[in-house]
Amino acid sequence: MMITIFEKDWSQLDRQQKQVILSRPKFAKQKATEVVTEILSQVKQNGDLALQEFTSRYDQVEVSQLAVSKNEIQRAYDSLSSKDLESIDLAIQGVESFHRKQVQADIRVKTHYGIECQMRYSPIQKVGLYVPGGSAPLLSSVIMQAIPAAIAGCETRIMCTPPNQQGQINRYILATAKLCGIKSIYKVGGAQAIAAMAFGTETIPKVDKIFGPGNIWVNTAKQIATSIAGGPSIDLPAGPSEVMVVVDEATPTAIAASDVLAQAEHDQNAQCIVVANSYQKAQLIKEQISIQLEVLPRREIAKVALNNSKMIIASKTQDQIDIINAYAPEHLILLNEENETMALKVLNAGSIFMGIYTPETLGDYISGTNHVLPTGGSSRSYSGLSLSSFLRTTTIQKSTLKGLEQIADATIHLATIEGLAGHSRAIQTRLRNSTEVTS
Amino acid sequence: MMITIFEKDWSQLDRQQKQVILSRPKFAKQKATEVVTEILSQVKQNGDLALQEFTSRYDQVEVSQLAVSKNEIQRAYDSLSSKDLESIDLAIQGVESFHRKQVQADIRVKTHYGIECQMRYSPIQKVGLYVPGGSAPLLSSVIMQAIPAAIAGCETRIMCTPPNQQGQINRYILATAKLCGIKSIYKVGGAQAIAAMAFGTETIPKVDKIFGPGNIWVNTAKQIATSIAGGPSIDLPAGPSEVMVVVDEATPTAIAASDVLAQAEHDQNAQCIVVANSYQKAQLIKEQISIQLEVLPRREIAKVALNNSKMIIASKTQDQIDIINAYAPEHLILLNEENETMALKVLNAGSIFMGIYTPETLGDYISGTNHVLPTGGSSRSYSGLSLSSFLRTTTIQKSTLKGLEQIADATIHLATIEGLAGHSRAIQTRLRNSTEVTS
Repeated sequence: MMITIFEKDWSQLDRQQKQVILSRPKFAKQKATEVVTEILSQVKQNGDLALQEFTSRYDQVEVSQLAVSKNEIQRAYDSLSSKDLESIDLAIQGVESFHRKQVQADIRVKTHYGIECQMRYSPIQKVGLYVPGGSAPLLSSVIMQAIPAAIAGCETRIMCTPPNQQGQINRYILATAKLCGIKSIYKVGGAQAIAAMAFGTETIPKVDKIFGPGNIWVNTAKQIATSIAGGPSIDLPAGPSEVMVVVDEATPTAIAASDVLAQAEHDQNAQCIVVANSYQKAQLIKEQISIQLEVLPRREIAKVALNNSKMIIASKTQDQIDIINAYAPEHLILLNEENETMALKVLNAGSIFMGIYTPETLGDYISGTNHVLPTGGSSRSYSGLSLSSFLRTTTIQKSTLKGLEQIADATIHLATIEGLAGHSRAIQTRLRNSTEVTS
Repeated sequence: MMITIFEKDWSQLDRQQKQVILSRPKFAKQKATEVVTEILSQVKQNGDLALQEFTSRYDQVEVSQLAVSKNEIQRAYDSLSSKDLESIDLAIQGVESFHRKQVQADIRVKTHYGIECQMRYSPIQKVGLYVPGGSAPLLSSVIMQAIPAAIAGCETRIMCTPPNQQGQINRYILATAKLCGIKSIYKVGGAQAIAAMAFGTETIPKVDKIFGPGNIWVNTAKQIATSIAGGPSIDLPAGPSEVMVVVDEATPTAIAASDVLAQAEHDQNAQCIVVANSYQKAQLIKEQISIQLEVLPRREIAKVALNNSKMIIASKTQDQIDIINAYAPEHLILLNEENETMALKVLNAGSIFMGIYTPETLGDYISGTNHVLPTGGSSRSYSGLSLSSFLRTTTIQKSTLKGLEQIADATIHLATIEGLAGHSRAIQTRLRNSTEVTS
């Protein structure tokens, strides 16, 4: 099997057929809740000791020091080539430049005579960043979390990532963290890492918000931790990555095919949807995918993902826009000539890549946009990670006596409708006292 | 029993004593999950019919038409006095003025040579607002949700609220909704209302995000609905309301006492914490609370809440600031003379009311700030409702061929470190094709 082409033009399909085509594959939810609940409870009770036990059990390594030492970080940094450092620096520059522009000024408004209201942005004080382990070091994941956290000014920024079987953290991860201003890195992964950041242990501080991608154990732990009263907040609901690629006659088929494969190689559950304006074009792209697939190192993963993937024929521009908005893709690559005008009509998408010289790879690493994006259609109501994910707002207000007098009547009237006499009295006491007190 | 005064100065307490004093009362979690899961499943399967059955069961009324008719809304509006309308208008003006100021311009940055990144704000298309029923009509809850939704430009804005035993919605709720631009109002409450907005029924549209306060059934339904793949997002985690009141020698005791009672009358689980700089002052306020309590209509509720409430003595300003930041109150009322300088040092609070002429009542109705705020210490990482709660961001990027060429090397290097050859090829295909294609 391979990517499926739906031959009929979109305009010929009925409502139900459209729904079926745009429905996401359902993955059997693994039952991680029980195990994760136990891990959370153990870490809450036994702190570092529990972390070490779980690391021994799941990562097959004894870790005597959970915190990565300054020396380890420095050694990792020193081991990088100048090309490594320049490439990482360029990525940091892009992400920093885009996220710094997101800084917002506090707001101050006179809403009524004598009454001033403010909205103040402040950094979340303590943030915990999770970086998954695995075969390849996801240094871009460090950048996408740590740079906005630093710009926001979060005071405590810690990072957890699982050690390898030698009890080490990958040197790229360590060096990138150093370059992004992360000083506290802990050798712990999985649900136990989330538990440590949610409750705090002797070594690892409790944080206010937990960020970062992860497997089923990590995501379940984040969900459970955030549902506990007094628990941390978390970033985005996690789901398999996905791309929608829109092509027209002029789109080079090799480019379209390479974009599909760049998505498909991520993960067996990844999904790619190509929207083409003719069946012939779709066929050509499908052939290109087959050709490029053969030389892709991660082809076994990509093949599985391609089985979940689809090509839709939609000859009308408005149909293409409807398809995008109905699917609400995480990544949207517009390889058609009218990409800029189409992008203006897109309501639901995590991140849009316009034109044939903007591969999604740029957004994954270097262009500056954040690669943590809403999946599974959740771009309808969620935003990707941004500076504001690391900030919160506080409102502040002050009324003068005259200001209070002017709106006292109306406010008391509203409180009376709502049956809250104590709310009215909090105003009346002030008016009564106003002759006796100095402001 | 009554509000408890801790006699020792804060500086004399040890760490554990401090923690105990600032810990929030634990309420036995009612087990609503099973019932709510069944309600969600019934509504998903049977739509309107299930809504009518649950309304009959839980609200003891047969509702043949779920949608409130235009006539019903107009009649409600016509029944209001000019004082009613003026008071509601003044509240809408305040909230509108403050939330309109929160509109943000889209962002556009050249992050690298030839690469432009954008961040675009767009309204969440479909929002569902929930307004609880009960003895008093919570019209302020309508304003706090519907006005920012309208300013954001959310296309579909619907409201659900339970009918009374005559199958009617309170006229103040209907009239306020009309004034706030809500056209679709449905007579359904509880978990079934949340289910209807999460899945959609024949009458009620599925929405992208659900807002609004509610009881244990409503909150559990919101939590379950948002955890379903493809489910709606929700506003804030719900919890009992709370206030922290800071007083000094000059604070009129009657004012401080009235602020405590305005909070305590809300709900038996409400919590009030007074921070006084002397034991004598705390005593005087406690006496005033007793006096004012006797004439409070909702005194039976307030009495229970006062049992959970505390007065702390902290003679040092820095200790007072530490107490505020450690507790992270939903509402913070600074009745002390140095309220403005203290507010600058507050890190964790939902909304701050500065000075003796700014009762919390203003923020509940009319000053303009939103009264939906993070409770239970969650102001450490959550913000109150604001315009941005009704918006989401999409990032957009475009590279020229020259732009891509300049960063191709670095990006391919990073993708190679991460082991993603397909990501590199998505760049290489473009460079290879660049001589053949027109941009």
